[in-house]
Amino acid sequence: MTVTDISFERGAPPPSSILIEGVEPLVDCGRYPIKREVGDRLVVSADIFREGHDKLAAVVRYRTWDSDAWHEVPMHPLENDRWEGEFPLQRNTRYIYTIAAFPDTFESWRDEIEKKRDAGLGLDLEIQEGVILLEDMLPRAEGTDATVLQRAVASVRSASNQVDAVAEMLRDDVIAAAHRNRSRAGWVTYQPDMTVIVDRVRARFAAWYEMFPRSAGSDPGRGATFKEVETHLPRIREMGFDVLYFTPIHPIGDTNRKGKNNTLNPKPDDPGVPYAIGSADGGHDAIEPGLGSEQDFRDLVAAASAQGLEIALDIAFQASPDHPWAQSHPEWFNRRPDGSIKYAENPPKKYEDIYPINFQNDDWQGLWQELRRIILHWVELGVRTFRVDNPHTKPTVFWEWLISEVQRDHPDTIFLSEAFTRPKVMKTLAKAGFAQSYTYFTWRNFKQELMDYLIELTQTEVKEYMRGNFFTNTHDILPYILQEGGRPAFQTRLVLAGTLSSVYGIYSGYELCENTAVAGKEEYLDSEKYEYKVWDWQRPGNIVEYISRFNRIRRDHPALQEYDNLSFLRADNDNVLCYIKALPAKGSYVMVAVNLDPFQPHHSALEIPHHILGTSHNDQIRVTELFTGESFLWQGAEETVYLDPQQNPAMMFDLRVWEHKDYEEPCF
Amino acid sequence: MTVTDISFERGAPPPSSILIEGVEPLVDCGRYPIKREVGDRLVVSADIFREGHDKLAAVVRYRTWDSDAWHEVPMHPLENDRWEGEFPLQRNTRYIYTIAAFPDTFESWRDEIEKKRDAGLGLDLEIQEGVILLEDMLPRAEGTDATVLQRAVASVRSASNQVDAVAEMLRDDVIAAAHRNRSRAGWVTYQPDMTVIVDRVRARFAAWYEMFPRSAGSDPGRGATFKEVETHLPRIREMGFDVLYFTPIHPIGDTNRKGKNNTLNPKPDDPGVPYAIGSADGGHDAIEPGLGSEQDFRDLVAAASAQGLEIALDIAFQASPDHPWAQSHPEWFNRRPDGSIKYAENPPKKYEDIYPINFQNDDWQGLWQELRRIILHWVELGVRTFRVDNPHTKPTVFWEWLISEVQRDHPDTIFLSEAFTRPKVMKTLAKAGFAQSYTYFTWRNFKQELMDYLIELTQTEVKEYMRGNFFTNTHDILPYILQEGGRPAFQTRLVLAGTLSSVYGIYSGYELCENTAVAGKEEYLDSEKYEYKVWDWQRPGNIVEYISRFNRIRRDHPALQEYDNLSFLRADNDNVLCYIKALPAKGSYVMVAVNLDPFQPHHSALEIPHHILGTSHNDQIRVTELFTGESFLWQGAEETVYLDPQQNPAMMFDLRVWEHKDYEEPCF
Repeated sequence: MTVTDISFERGAPPPSSILIEGVEPLVDCGRYPIKREVGDRLVVSADIFREGHDKLAAVVRYRTWDSDAWHEVPMHPLENDRWEGEFPLQRNTRYIYTIAAFPDTFESWRDEIEKKRDAGLGLDLEIQEGVILLEDMLPRAEGTDATVLQRAVASVRSASNQVDAVAEMLRDDVIAAAHRNRSRAGWVTYQPDMTVIVDRVRARFAAWYEMFPRSAGSDPGRGATFKEVETHLPRIREMGFDVLYFTPIHPIGDTNRKGKNNTLNPKPDDPGVPYAIGSADGGHDAIEPGLGSEQDFRDLVAAASAQGLEIALDIAFQASPDHPWAQSHPEWFNRRPDGSIKYAENPPKKYEDIYPINFQNDDWQGLWQELRRIILHWVELGVRTFRVDNPHTKPTVFWEWLISEVQRDHPDTIFLSEAFTRPKVMKTLAKAGFAQSYTYFTWRNFKQELMDYLIELTQTEVKEYMRGNFFTNTHDILPYILQEGGRPAFQTRLVLAGTLSSVYGIYSGYELCENTAVAGKEEYLDSEKYEYKVWDWQRPGNIVEYISRFNRIRRDHPALQEYDNLSFLRADNDNVLCYIKALPAKGSYVMVAVNLDPFQPHHSALEIPHHILGTSHNDQIRVTELFTGESFLWQGAEETVYLDPQQNPAMMFDLRVWEHKDYEEPCF
Repeated sequence: MTVTDISFERGAPPPSSILIEGVEPLVDCGRYPIKREVGDRLVVSADIFREGHDKLAAVVRYRTWDSDAWHEVPMHPLENDRWEGEFPLQRNTRYIYTIAAFPDTFESWRDEIEKKRDAGLGLDLEIQEGVILLEDMLPRAEGTDATVLQRAVASVRSASNQVDAVAEMLRDDVIAAAHRNRSRAGWVTYQPDMTVIVDRVRARFAAWYEMFPRSAGSDPGRGATFKEVETHLPRIREMGFDVLYFTPIHPIGDTNRKGKNNTLNPKPDDPGVPYAIGSADGGHDAIEPGLGSEQDFRDLVAAASAQGLEIALDIAFQASPDHPWAQSHPEWFNRRPDGSIKYAENPPKKYEDIYPINFQNDDWQGLWQELRRIILHWVELGVRTFRVDNPHTKPTVFWEWLISEVQRDHPDTIFLSEAFTRPKVMKTLAKAGFAQSYTYFTWRNFKQELMDYLIELTQTEVKEYMRGNFFTNTHDILPYILQEGGRPAFQTRLVLAGTLSSVYGIYSGYELCENTAVAGKEEYLDSEKYEYKVWDWQRPGNIVEYISRFNRIRRDHPALQEYDNLSFLRADNDNVLCYIKALPAKGSYVMVAVNLDPFQPHHSALEIPHHILGTSHNDQIRVTELFTGESFLWQGAEETVYLDPQQNPAMMFDLRVWEHKDYEEPCF
């Protein structure tokens, strides 16, 4: 209600004077949805008030986006005009919700008559006003409510004195019936309606494993097939991963194909970069023939599913010059004055094997619908998770539309945004509907920068819409900390990724501590982006057991499965990062201490998190270190740990409080 | 642009992919206006970005609310996708403004061709693209711009090589003309339009003096007249006040009239409370006959104006039972079942001399229009400032409507909200259009609570819409600090009120240190609310000279005339509050140190505010204490002061930095 909405026509109702402000959570004034997972309860709060001291009532209204049936839960006042209400998110869908409020004339009357009764004042007119209120409810009341309200009105009339009459009107059953049937005149609804995307839990809790499917074989002269990939499923599952993510599986272009180590003079048998999508064998809905058939892919998805693994596909909306679209839809690309299609460039760099798509070309509707068709094609083949390559080079509104279109029939689809770019662009992609986002975690190595970033992600408004999927490495990024920190760094970066966030990922080779880099760059030497690779998955120095143990710990401890339940704890050594993930509802508390220095051992005193546990210095805490299984007893303000990169670069403690018992009676 | 706005009809343009987010300042998502004063520049900033790395352009668009003519100023990128622009607020009116952005295809092209030129790449296609861009501008270009662009296109065609051609296209005059005439395809405008209320400067900088006009006389047997009030104008003006605020001047009801000290058995000659408005002599548009005629009032307004004083009227929208409306419009009040009008109560308290108005009655339009007529009646008589009594018991939307209606023709009207109520209600009244607001300052006596409150008011979003008018006392509030702290408290509370805020007020009697209270209450004994009073304005112990000096200091120092330029400084004694008001643009810096303890003297070291002055510990600062005129030289990190309640309870320092000069050449 604003001034310009006021109608001064005769008979127009007065504008409502109830204000609903400061709604939380709220992203960009309600422009974008927030995110939750199935099984959560959404708590909504707002400042709700009006002039004077009359009583108000407020409700949260909600419906699923595919239904017109609104449900309603009451809101309760907290303090300082703040109200709160909550409703259950039971389905994997989107819910629309808002807040409504109205003057509670019954409660205002009740408050006044109770005060006057207690002050011994005359109540004649107040009783008459109450009868009018109750009679006004009768046309709305049904069943028992109608009986109760009618009886209250009748008994007031027959009461022998005012105090008895008031007692009849304020019986518990009358109050309850009155609340159900009270007038809602003056009802006002918050605008705009808000949306919460309720994802399946896997959007929040998962361990990802990235691989090039063509690298799953044993013959360096050709790419592996989907059938060969199938033989790796037990190995990956035994390490504890949930999502197996493949780089693009489509036919690769020949024109301007890149050779080994990104060279421009490929040999005839170089396989090319999987991101140069499209050839005579097809485009984004086709499979590179060397990998197998569509049926082979279906078989692989099923085999993975049987083991509890789900396949994630890489979606890179760009084309090689040999993509069928370059012939059939040249208007979907950027055209030069000579009629040619413009290849990708970042002057003076040229990417002549890639044509970017023009998402705002004159046939943008045809293009967008084709891209939707491609996603739905893979959904039909059983894929529910998509890692989207470079979404920040396409319009955010396109992704908002695409994800919403796909999720309308397939709410279980999960889209991961691979945007390593400016912070606001990354956040906006998350707001637009991506369930998960790559983050700067990959480059955050020191204590303060890790704390600052994690607080931003998990303790500010950002947590409402963005879930950081913490990758330790990717096929494009081999961070210096892994290049130079060796095995201890591989261990600590794993623990940091998988405990600071509930969803994290590694790129294959990580378990082998593979860290051969292009000199001076954060890139892999002899990257499998450009060539066939064969790996020895049991190679000495591997951390397969460590990863397996770590992922088992994550599965066994519910506190590690939530995203925004992180609290940092005081550690007096700047090389040691200490924090706790807590889920009091399940009695789950996991405290983590990580030596950020892969070279030197460090001692540190750690704060015992009494403010999280609800304990005091006298309480007794039973502690189990989860990598070793060793037990400790803790009491007091702090404990000291010794973290040796070669032995225990990270420690994870399960905390259980021994219930405090004092026996007043001696035990005989 | 949201997903549901996208049209997939053939020929529909693609949705814009530019995002405008995080606009500042912004109150409640643009629901309410911000406030500034004539002569300010409004700085607007926002995150503006899109996918990829193409260049953008952005502008702030603005118009006055009475005009359809939009003006435009460019925005400039700062860092991290943040943009900023500003425009001048030259008129006392409301401005409507918003932000718009569009892809800057010319700058994107220029960036690309410059990089390729610098890399020595071929430029043939890029030059052709540039020619197409320039030719596209020609239909929009006029005068010199058209000539410059045509010449650029022609000279490119005749250039002997690519580098020369590029040089012709990137001449400064071509770039300037291109910027003026570039395509705005893809233009997107932020929604909703925003509003800034530009008040006259008096809304921000003023000293108020409240009085009961009937107390201006010398005969305790009758009320004073407007003519007698006129004789006080020089006294009030010489103390340095700008606004003379009268409690209500309307006829006072007889029914249930209150006697002295709020008793229920008045004597026949008791004058009644001016807030019980309305009698047989008239209502809110009438004048209590004892005060004089409408012409006397006009004369008084003119006499005040001639001295540089303006009259503020008290607007109390409520009625005595004798108000003409009780007969002519009983439907404007709350009715009981027996047909009677409900008087004000806060059970068990009764206010039987007051009928509250029902702002949402069935004839609310008639009521609202009558209330607007009343304000305009007093505007016609020369009043431009209104202190509104208890606005928080009336709908906020009513005030929003009323103030907007009055300001449309009278933008120089100023409304002060007398709402001492819950914090969110007070803030919302300010958002709705009140130029000034009473605050909790009146009860904030200790260091931390003063700092917390002032930071909230002047350093957070609240400063965008709320100007706290700091009253030391009112006719209803005699705070304990004044009751018990005596003359030193009257001095320090004056200094705090008039330096922590740029707009402040006292209630008459303050200059006499009048502090006789009803025992145990923060109320005046023998309050002039209920009786005729005669005062000796030269009474011993008065602080008239102190007030006069203080208001002169405020007038002489521009830093004290701004509202949100406050910074607290470190003082190592918790009884001493230290802060600075700074206006670097005018070289004005006033540092204040106040002993908050009216009983004991205190020493304190004070931080010298180098971070505000832009100086370092070696700089030399010339200091003048403004009450005494004494001079000091300061250097280093801190200075110690001694504040004796009996001598100098507060000190105010004018700071001037001596420009630092080192002579490399010896002076002979």
